[in-house]
Amino acid sequence: MARAGSYRPSIMARINENYLKLKAGYLFPEIGRRVTAFCQANPEAQVIRLGIGDVTEPLPEAVRQAMHAAVDEMGARASFRGYGPEQGYDFLRDAIAEHDYRARGAHVEADEIFVSDGSKCDTGNILDIFGSDNTVAVTDPVYPVYVDTNVMAGNTGAPDESGRYPGLRYIPVTAENGFVPALPDERVDLIYLCYPNNPTGTVATRETLARWVDYARRNDAIILYDAAYEAYITDPAIPHSIYEIEGARQVAIEFRSFSKTAGFTGTRCAFTVVPKELTGTAAGGARQPIHPLWNRRQTTKFNGVSYVVQRGAAAVYSPEGRQQVRKLIDFYLENARLLREGLAKVGIRVYGGVDAPYVWLATPGGTPSWTFFDQLLQKAHLVGTPGSGFGAAGEGYFRLSAFNSRANVEEAVARFQRVVG
Amino acid sequence: MARAGSYRPSIMARINENYLKLKAGYLFPEIGRRVTAFCQANPEAQVIRLGIGDVTEPLPEAVRQAMHAAVDEMGARASFRGYGPEQGYDFLRDAIAEHDYRARGAHVEADEIFVSDGSKCDTGNILDIFGSDNTVAVTDPVYPVYVDTNVMAGNTGAPDESGRYPGLRYIPVTAENGFVPALPDERVDLIYLCYPNNPTGTVATRETLARWVDYARRNDAIILYDAAYEAYITDPAIPHSIYEIEGARQVAIEFRSFSKTAGFTGTRCAFTVVPKELTGTAAGGARQPIHPLWNRRQTTKFNGVSYVVQRGAAAVYSPEGRQQVRKLIDFYLENARLLREGLAKVGIRVYGGVDAPYVWLATPGGTPSWTFFDQLLQKAHLVGTPGSGFGAAGEGYFRLSAFNSRANVEEAVARFQRVVG
Repeated sequence: MARAGSYRPSIMARINENYLKLKAGYLFPEIGRRVTAFCQANPEAQVIRLGIGDVTEPLPEAVRQAMHAAVDEMGARASFRGYGPEQGYDFLRDAIAEHDYRARGAHVEADEIFVSDGSKCDTGNILDIFGSDNTVAVTDPVYPVYVDTNVMAGNTGAPDESGRYPGLRYIPVTAENGFVPALPDERVDLIYLCYPNNPTGTVATRETLARWVDYARRNDAIILYDAAYEAYITDPAIPHSIYEIEGARQVAIEFRSFSKTAGFTGTRCAFTVVPKELTGTAAGGARQPIHPLWNRRQTTKFNGVSYVVQRGAAAVYSPEGRQQVRKLIDFYLENARLLREGLAKVGIRVYGGVDAPYVWLATPGGTPSWTFFDQLLQKAHLVGTPGSGFGAAGEGYFRLSAFNSRANVEEAVARFQRVVG
Repeated sequence: MARAGSYRPSIMARINENYLKLKAGYLFPEIGRRVTAFCQANPEAQVIRLGIGDVTEPLPEAVRQAMHAAVDEMGARASFRGYGPEQGYDFLRDAIAEHDYRARGAHVEADEIFVSDGSKCDTGNILDIFGSDNTVAVTDPVYPVYVDTNVMAGNTGAPDESGRYPGLRYIPVTAENGFVPALPDERVDLIYLCYPNNPTGTVATRETLARWVDYARRNDAIILYDAAYEAYITDPAIPHSIYEIEGARQVAIEFRSFSKTAGFTGTRCAFTVVPKELTGTAAGGARQPIHPLWNRRQTTKFNGVSYVVQRGAAAVYSPEGRQQVRKLIDFYLENARLLREGLAKVGIRVYGGVDAPYVWLATPGGTPSWTFFDQLLQKAHLVGTPGSGFGAAGEGYFRLSAFNSRANVEEAVARFQRVVG
């Protein structure tokens, strides 16, 4: 029965050895382990978690109403929904194109929008459609998923003692350069950019983005633009989408999420935009459009987002939904302001937190990030995220998330001031 | 800023060229295109779709009630759920371990169960954790996703004129061998098996599975066992899980889904079992457990299934849920019986459809599968799935799905008899 042509005996099913290069544990599970151990040893401690960037406030009423209605639709044969389009329902793709793009003067067609169950998934899965011989650049610090998925895909060597992976290009973003990533002084093929930035909470101006789009156009590079936090932008001069920059459609994929916008971290909905003008190249040098590749990837390896969840996501764009989401975001941004100002009051240097739900702080006296993590946990029962967990250039920094109740944020600020002040 | 060590100039971002080897269009989109064209040309035609295996009956009441309750939980701060465990909530993993495994005498621990948004996704994504130098076997005909995801992963060459991909081992399952796949006469590393089978609707006996488990143990191979249709098994002698076979924990990964069991094709929930005893090998020859690799893959590239959906899935195991699901399955199985017997009455050779929701038929006079597809569509306004779409050995066969209303199935049988009889 077998094709003997390319028969190659092997000893045993082989694993993807690139996984063995990964440093022990993804950042957030590691934090989880330390916090669990502390809580078990100190069951009376009232731990406040400003670590993982997870929302805490209820799902907006408009979203819940839409989900209830969709569950009811599933109960009648005439309105029951089985498999939907893998790319998402038109009602959601149309709403996204209209409100997130056309309303801001950015050109994105509904069929360039691929609805998914998470930006984390998409920023990882996107590597499926790229070759293994690309030069990949990330900022440092950076959202760890970009790095780890490149390791898994075989685009790197084993990490060096600083935790950096040979093969990746690291672009530092620190207080020294005002958190503005410098253009690479060599050619790179893929560049991950995230604005508003996780973890630093800083934003990219129109000029910064235009410089990167120009770089990508000159170098036939592709920007993987993660805009999961765009809803937190308050400064009207800051672009929400990379497609607000002229020429970006030729060079950028954009990732968006309902997680932080509308409190969907446990409900799961996101989307990825792949413009039809975007191209890569095959070995022969021929330009290949990226849109059909991602479409093929999604139709073959994904089955669409739950209908009930897509209805919930679409409700985010209703007049009530938009109002409720605005209130949610304003609430978290006020938390960020309290953190920012409360910490600055005791002399801590703070960054971000104005157009983003993250406050990035320089640890007092340059204490190593994990040491500061353990100190805060032990002395103040506060959980944050060590900056070094996001990359070598994050050492000496620390991230606080504004996702919490007002009472917890106020209490956290008070504890912080007590311990550090 | 850049690491100059491994600098390699390139011309342009490279795509994954393996995608260019894929034959035009995944099977079901191709069917969709032909049906849409027919409907546009014949707007008055009452087309009955027995093509894509998509459920049609309402989501069980117990599931809807649980989803409503979960949506309400999302509306209060105290019961709101943000990020859940990427592997799934304990309430669901425990219910699965208890009802799907322990109750059948199969040993599977809750923490070996990874809840996901689809078996299609998992059977594709599982290749992430395996090396690119494995010898991969599939049956022929076969669920196209197993083949296409291996092409995308670079495990094959470009297809030959029969549509087969060099590098894969094809194991024919046809009427001639009673739809029992013969053991490979050479060593293979990964073997996809699907029982109850899609597309043939046939099942594997305990003896057949034991032979495959034995083969895998002797050859240090891994069986990727897709049991998405296990709930349709009526014969008490047929195993529902490969873990009912002694020794399977050392050699098998099992995929399960709520899609066909409880009508979740549009609601999205499934799970994959990776036993802790299962190992693969790294280049050095050291055995590596597979469980931590899949755990790492899922925690890094996946964010868990929607809480509301997981609550719905857990309700499938409640007494009411089990009763409602049983009724659903009996309904579709009765459809399968009507198709099977109605077609046999006009002399068509039919297979499967007893312990599975698919009827597999030999086309009258050996008509090529796509020709038969077009004939049925034109003359009877019936949509089925051409057997050749599942592989070269499926040529001359045709799949009918039992997922439809009773009225549509009865009408389909009548039309079939009129056209073929």
